[in-house]
Amino acid sequence: MDIRKDADEIIKHAIKEVQPYDAVKRALSGASFENGRLILVAAGKAAWSMAEAAVSELGEKITRGVVVTKYDHSKGNLPGIEIFEAGHPVPDENSFYATEIALKMTEKLSRDDTVLFLLSGGGSALFEKPLIPADELQDITRQLLACGADIVEINTIRKRLSAVKGGKFARHCMPATVFSIVLSDIVGDPLDMIASGPACPDASTNEDAERIVRKYGLRLSDKAKELLGAETPKALGNVETHITGSVKELCRAAERACVSLGYRPLILTDSLGCEASEAGKFLSAVARYYADTKESLAFIAGGETVVHLKGTGKGGRNQELALSAAEGIKDLRDTAVFSFGSDGTDGPTDAAGGYVDQSTYGRLQTLGIDVNAMLDNNDAYNALKLSGGLIITGATGTNVNDASIVLIKR
Amino acid sequence: MDIRKDADEIIKHAIKEVQPYDAVKRALSGASFENGRLILVAAGKAAWSMAEAAVSELGEKITRGVVVTKYDHSKGNLPGIEIFEAGHPVPDENSFYATEIALKMTEKLSRDDTVLFLLSGGGSALFEKPLIPADELQDITRQLLACGADIVEINTIRKRLSAVKGGKFARHCMPATVFSIVLSDIVGDPLDMIASGPACPDASTNEDAERIVRKYGLRLSDKAKELLGAETPKALGNVETHITGSVKELCRAAERACVSLGYRPLILTDSLGCEASEAGKFLSAVARYYADTKESLAFIAGGETVVHLKGTGKGGRNQELALSAAEGIKDLRDTAVFSFGSDGTDGPTDAAGGYVDQSTYGRLQTLGIDVNAMLDNNDAYNALKLSGGLIITGATGTNVNDASIVLIKR
Repeated sequence: MDIRKDADEIIKHAIKEVQPYDAVKRALSGASFENGRLILVAAGKAAWSMAEAAVSELGEKITRGVVVTKYDHSKGNLPGIEIFEAGHPVPDENSFYATEIALKMTEKLSRDDTVLFLLSGGGSALFEKPLIPADELQDITRQLLACGADIVEINTIRKRLSAVKGGKFARHCMPATVFSIVLSDIVGDPLDMIASGPACPDASTNEDAERIVRKYGLRLSDKAKELLGAETPKALGNVETHITGSVKELCRAAERACVSLGYRPLILTDSLGCEASEAGKFLSAVARYYADTKESLAFIAGGETVVHLKGTGKGGRNQELALSAAEGIKDLRDTAVFSFGSDGTDGPTDAAGGYVDQSTYGRLQTLGIDVNAMLDNNDAYNALKLSGGLIITGATGTNVNDASIVLIKR
Repeated sequence: MDIRKDADEIIKHAIKEVQPYDAVKRALSGASFENGRLILVAAGKAAWSMAEAAVSELGEKITRGVVVTKYDHSKGNLPGIEIFEAGHPVPDENSFYATEIALKMTEKLSRDDTVLFLLSGGGSALFEKPLIPADELQDITRQLLACGADIVEINTIRKRLSAVKGGKFARHCMPATVFSIVLSDIVGDPLDMIASGPACPDASTNEDAERIVRKYGLRLSDKAKELLGAETPKALGNVETHITGSVKELCRAAERACVSLGYRPLILTDSLGCEASEAGKFLSAVARYYADTKESLAFIAGGETVVHLKGTGKGGRNQELALSAAEGIKDLRDTAVFSFGSDGTDGPTDAAGGYVDQSTYGRLQTLGIDVNAMLDNNDAYNALKLSGGLIITGATGTNVNDASIVLIKR
């Protein structure tokens, strides 16, 4: 089906443009790094590819460097770079060791030097040097989780117990410049949240930390109490940050792909955060309104929806979003709704997302499938498998959230 | 606040244009009714206003007429028209009596005659002549509801047990022409659903009816069984239908009001049907994406959202939608999300809907109000009351669903 081909083309194009490799190359265009030494520090699940792009772009300009990524995420040697694999989501000795190497490599730099800091999702575990014993840090995290503390509260505490989080890595690099390229995997790009912001001024204060300690009655060692009293950097004059490969870029890449296929695209949002199934219904309602269009249209919504599980089926938020749109677009003309995760995996499945068009609901009905019952059981995967609506890309090497797209082809 | 003034202006304008009076006048423009007799039959909650518009437009051309509306919905005499008030949502003796009068008035008409049939929401109860005793009809309805039958199934049965539903009124009027003006209050304007379609061919079949009887094991009298075997009209050559005052017109009226206030509007849909709170979050995500706009923008979504109650608070779908958008638009610049029911009543409250802007969330927080807790308790009314965000219009005299609007003022 033509419209499915268009969808696949858009997905391929959008995912390629937010790959760490392409994204880092874009962020580096225009940067010269003519003076002093250039130290590369890459941390996160995409660290290897980000470093590869930097090496290919900057070559011999890079004095030396370190990559710390998740186990099985290194794809080989990179000239002049030390590569480490370490624990994620729980940091381990290798995380601490590699981080120590990075800290050594970036100490005693001069004002002319630059640290090229490449950060991606997972960096919070992979790039870490706790200032208290790792067991104690885990215990405090467990206490916070058990009390129902939110992620902002947890980070407020953890930043103060780390030698690198909350802007402390950038402070460590002073007076060198930190040229930070951040591959954002959090909607809205909150820099201090991505990998707990090693090169980002910390908005939280010691008073915040004390309030959290009191609120939850945390049990802390004297050392930990002392650390919570030491303030994090509130300004970092030596940092230049480039956010790249974000969901905004995913949407814009999808938009460009739509144009090249003859659709007139409109980005509705890049911070979708509602329930997946309801977003699917909303988008199908948009499709219905424009059913009489004479020109091909595309509506793009980026973000990360949520699923509140009710059933025991197989699926993911993108598959659920797409299947939830099937009934609403049934019997329209040449209309599709599809949704995909830029990391190529949607929920605990081998699919990146799901695709439905005007015929999906009817074809499933003919096969005796009750789409609403499948949705109630969170079993979008099996429904889409039967309708040929699974989107399979394989792991893509990056994660900048999802895009959900309505196509109306004329 | 300026943007609240704009919202109120848009609400006022949009509601006015879908008022029965304005809507009927638009639908009648161009109709002549030069031949034969012209019999007016108006049924539904808006029957009186629809008849008033017809009388004002057609005057002496109307031979005679009958209005049947809900108790307290008549606003006085209309020349040449018999006016009845009757039971809604449960039909009563007055419904049956008035419907009988209408049937008498429209029998033995000639090919030159015209029945001007003005239908609005509530017509299903107000315009009814059951073919079995009313108690039995109520018992069957109760059985269907208890079994979890859906509205399509219920109507399939009820149309066959009525002398007027499912196209039978129009068949009764033959060979006269039925000029039907329908004030739509159901998303998507399904003519056979509005007041159970007295002048609309019936898509359901006797086989459908029998299947429903078997599916739910309905207990039926012999008379009822016999009636379910008599087929409803599948085509009605004597009917000309004009749908007016629909949610589409509500959206377009809002769109025109936006333009006149300097906003560039975009209608996203006129058939929104998802969970109210999720629609609010979706619209707030749209607002966030366009936060950097240089020109004033408006996004309009018409339809009728749903609320699955979790709490015991006070509210309605429009208030819940608006309040659910408050967090997502907080701290944006001059941005509002509001939602209102065109009938002026939203849920069991005296409000028509709700309004929030970028300051609402923070102001409620300052007052010690946890917006999410209020939403979890379905208590949007009380939150919006405190923030000054209730939209109060009073009963408007019509119901063509809701409009939810994002305004970004520059």
